[in-house]
Amino acid sequence: MRLELFVALACVARAFAIWPRPRQLTKGSTALRLSPSFEIDLSGVKNPSKDLLAATTRSANHLRRDKLQALLVDRGASSAGRIKTAKLLVRLSLRIASSGMVKSISDEAVAPLHLRNEGYKLTVPEDGTSATLEANTTLGLFRGLTTFEQLWYELNGDVYTLEAPFDIVDSPAYLPHWRYQTDPRCNELGQGALIVLLKYQRINISRQLNTFHWHIVDSQSFPLQIPGFMELSEKAAYNSTAIYTPSDVTDIVTYAAERGIDVIAEIDTPGHTSAISKSHPEHITCPEATPWSTYANEPPAGQLRLASSATTNFTFELLSAAASLFRSTYFGTGGDEVNENCYDADEETQRELAAQGKTLLEAFNTFTRVTHQALRRVGKTPMVWEEMLLDYEMTLANDTLIMVWISANNVASVVKKGYQVIHASNEYFYLDCGAGGWLGQNPLGNSWCNPFKTWQKAYTFDPLAGLKPSEYHLVLGGQHLLWTEQASPSNLDSITWPRAATSAEVFWSGPRGDVGTALPRLHDIAYRFKQRGVNAIALQPEWCVLRPGACDVDE
Amino acid sequence: MRLELFVALACVARAFAIWPRPRQLTKGSTALRLSPSFEIDLSGVKNPSKDLLAATTRSANHLRRDKLQALLVDRGASSAGRIKTAKLLVRLSLRIASSGMVKSISDEAVAPLHLRNEGYKLTVPEDGTSATLEANTTLGLFRGLTTFEQLWYELNGDVYTLEAPFDIVDSPAYLPHWRYQTDPRCNELGQGALIVLLKYQRINISRQLNTFHWHIVDSQSFPLQIPGFMELSEKAAYNSTAIYTPSDVTDIVTYAAERGIDVIAEIDTPGHTSAISKSHPEHITCPEATPWSTYANEPPAGQLRLASSATTNFTFELLSAAASLFRSTYFGTGGDEVNENCYDADEETQRELAAQGKTLLEAFNTFTRVTHQALRRVGKTPMVWEEMLLDYEMTLANDTLIMVWISANNVASVVKKGYQVIHASNEYFYLDCGAGGWLGQNPLGNSWCNPFKTWQKAYTFDPLAGLKPSEYHLVLGGQHLLWTEQASPSNLDSITWPRAATSAEVFWSGPRGDVGTALPRLHDIAYRFKQRGVNAIALQPEWCVLRPGACDVDE
Repeated sequence: MRLELFVALACVARAFAIWPRPRQLTKGSTALRLSPSFEIDLSGVKNPSKDLLAATTRSANHLRRDKLQALLVDRGASSAGRIKTAKLLVRLSLRIASSGMVKSISDEAVAPLHLRNEGYKLTVPEDGTSATLEANTTLGLFRGLTTFEQLWYELNGDVYTLEAPFDIVDSPAYLPHWRYQTDPRCNELGQGALIVLLKYQRINISRQLNTFHWHIVDSQSFPLQIPGFMELSEKAAYNSTAIYTPSDVTDIVTYAAERGIDVIAEIDTPGHTSAISKSHPEHITCPEATPWSTYANEPPAGQLRLASSATTNFTFELLSAAASLFRSTYFGTGGDEVNENCYDADEETQRELAAQGKTLLEAFNTFTRVTHQALRRVGKTPMVWEEMLLDYEMTLANDTLIMVWISANNVASVVKKGYQVIHASNEYFYLDCGAGGWLGQNPLGNSWCNPFKTWQKAYTFDPLAGLKPSEYHLVLGGQHLLWTEQASPSNLDSITWPRAATSAEVFWSGPRGDVGTALPRLHDIAYRFKQRGVNAIALQPEWCVLRPGACDVDE
Repeated sequence: MRLELFVALACVARAFAIWPRPRQLTKGSTALRLSPSFEIDLSGVKNPSKDLLAATTRSANHLRRDKLQALLVDRGASSAGRIKTAKLLVRLSLRIASSGMVKSISDEAVAPLHLRNEGYKLTVPEDGTSATLEANTTLGLFRGLTTFEQLWYELNGDVYTLEAPFDIVDSPAYLPHWRYQTDPRCNELGQGALIVLLKYQRINISRQLNTFHWHIVDSQSFPLQIPGFMELSEKAAYNSTAIYTPSDVTDIVTYAAERGIDVIAEIDTPGHTSAISKSHPEHITCPEATPWSTYANEPPAGQLRLASSATTNFTFELLSAAASLFRSTYFGTGGDEVNENCYDADEETQRELAAQGKTLLEAFNTFTRVTHQALRRVGKTPMVWEEMLLDYEMTLANDTLIMVWISANNVASVVKKGYQVIHASNEYFYLDCGAGGWLGQNPLGNSWCNPFKTWQKAYTFDPLAGLKPSEYHLVLGGQHLLWTEQASPSNLDSITWPRAATSAEVFWSGPRGDVGTALPRLHDIAYRFKQRGVNAIALQPEWCVLRPGACDVDE
């Protein structure tokens, strides 16, 4: 009885060990091996881009090197006979279905959201004849390649599946379906985002991540080197090695785009700009004012003098220059946690407001209009935090992307106003919450956004809760976020993976929410991450991993 | 005003940047540099042991290689002139004060607690004449060396302090003042404890850790290879590479002892022994019974048949053989979470109890008496979890060490009965709590011991709360504990450090509890850890680290 139960559960585990789960999947029960001469054939793609060629090489390497044994008690040993005598798959043939011009993965990855096509169709016959992967775009092919990589396990040198044939038709439920965000508070700043991008993209399980939201400057430091504004990073970065040069940015953006990831940068304004006071004290009011909590949500205080035309012009030029460094269609101007006390205490701002006959919010609205013009000038669409729309009621263009972080309940208000939303609720997706706070003189040491957000909490999130069907199309997707006051390369992997992969499934596959059946597949992806050098944490003891269901709360 | 405040706080930070804080410390304000020819002189120690020689070499290396810049905004640059012209310290002279036989660090580290002497006296004159480190034992010298290492910062190639002279008289408030515990549930088992010991001891800040409590086997696996019981690890380890051979154990114990750390192993009995059923089904009742939660606090279920004389004899021999592998005076027999349902459902146990005319607890008492005799036979003192005394009311020898894990409030009951206690409260010291649970089919995903235990929570712990002065001597110390259901080398560093260093200060220095003044010193030790390759997490953004107090909740 018991043994049967385990076998049955184990089969379930293997059958769906693809993360995120494809839209349609049928599979069989035939063993199939990759031939030692297995190749990925690109003859069906006219003039394949360099980044597609590189992607197929990486996939071939992963297939050879992953060496992940099946997550079963015997790690697959009882199937050794079937595997040894299984037919050999010699070829995966890639084909672009459309007859139009074929773009590179990079070009597809940074295109406007509504122009992206990430769908693919993957067929793996059981008889050893060629597997086929079809898509309308190279980006779709790339997503399909990463799914193909997840079909295989290793035993005694053979790379095999016991579940051929496969028929998979897949495309994302939301766009951008999955995003990862980090910021420069990181103590080993400068390395933070580089590690995210150079390491996590190495995973090449690209359906885990299609957008990297790079909150690139903040109150504590200004690491971005911007042509025409060199003094900013020179004076306001942590140190001379903690700087992203334009060439670093190009490297990161290119590296990401070749791996199907759009890098959306953000320069938060007008709040969280204390660091700018190091080089431009004239543009920042209440810099490092004390007590900081009166003037800011986070130390050090300091905000752009939004009523000053000199400051507005400075910000206009700064944002144009910064946004020009990036390839994405989108650029963030922040707009969270603007503190009124900071402006009330500033004589210059008060003088300007009086002279202009404006309220603070009216001046803020002008400031926002001008700074968003700065983005339009260089062809970018703005992205802002929810307060800009809901609290400060700024006049925003209809295509502005709104990130909702304070409460998922606020999504309803955003879509009601007709704006497109990206889920970023701290209640579900903040990776840094609940593992201790970072403010000093804090005897309990709790973080403001307690408790810890478990993978289960994110996984059971419903992106459409409380919305009318007519509003669904305004939900673009969602992101896990890591604010890095207490993060650094020391814990970036462990605080992120595999927890953050849950939003990949919520936003690629659509919500389903059964944590019990998700867990074995999540183990699978976590083990693959580890095989590729990403230090994902263990979600369960290996005893439980190898026995799906045996460690459930109610067995 | 502001600037002065920072300078004042910064001085406080530097002045006490020793962790854990010494019992007595006076210091000055004179700059002093280590001479390029700085040496640690052992001529005052007759026949210095090999491990003391090795320890001085390691200290000399740390002094040269740490290269930790002062945690100030300018990282010490404004003192460059004073540093360049500072007097040079050429020598630290070590001296054993007692005239008796000098033992090795290793021998001191594994001695009975009441025979250990870890105190030392460290004097660093400001005029460049020899610094002196005196102790009664090599273990004391070793503790003092690690304190000496913490006095220094680096700037432009100089290793300096601005606070000479130093006079430090130090000894621990409790014994064993600080312990670290981990277990074999770890998914990359076999490596877990090795990494703890081979890596954390590399830190060589030995006052952070004087005991490693090694919960070496558990329900999920039995990795310890025991002569005479080879079948256990052969059948019940995760796999053939996840085994600790006797030679591994000797390596670990030796490596630890040379670094002043006593390794206390534990074989948990009679519960948490499911793994033993793989090789000895006759000794385990309810192995992997379902639903597991009826028969155990953690899957898989399975307990030793404590009423069976065959099982009792088996356990006697097993514990004797296992305990013989370790050098420590102490050995743990567990005794937590024994589940009565498991025995109630076992016909054989019921038959035995009826035949012997005993209740389950009476049989358990006999079992405990015999298993503790097994330890005595090989010269060990037993260590158990609190239930053995408080819930099951076992007859225990007075020198048995009792670990209190369920609630710190239970310490009062333990000392009232006259037993020695080690604080191990999950409410304060469990490193694994509150960052997600590991049981499956658990939609919220919370851990049983929510919330996360912050460093502040542990730091403000009072080991003597609720006790009478006459009972104080029964409090031996305390430990941070890491149960490794979700821990592996991926997150061992980040889940542990610097959080766990707080108990070093609570139990070496005695409680004080001001998290505000502790934080800058805790940063200092965390940064030193990182310089030595231990991935301690950041407790604050570096902006805050370099400005003590500036990120306090109430500035």
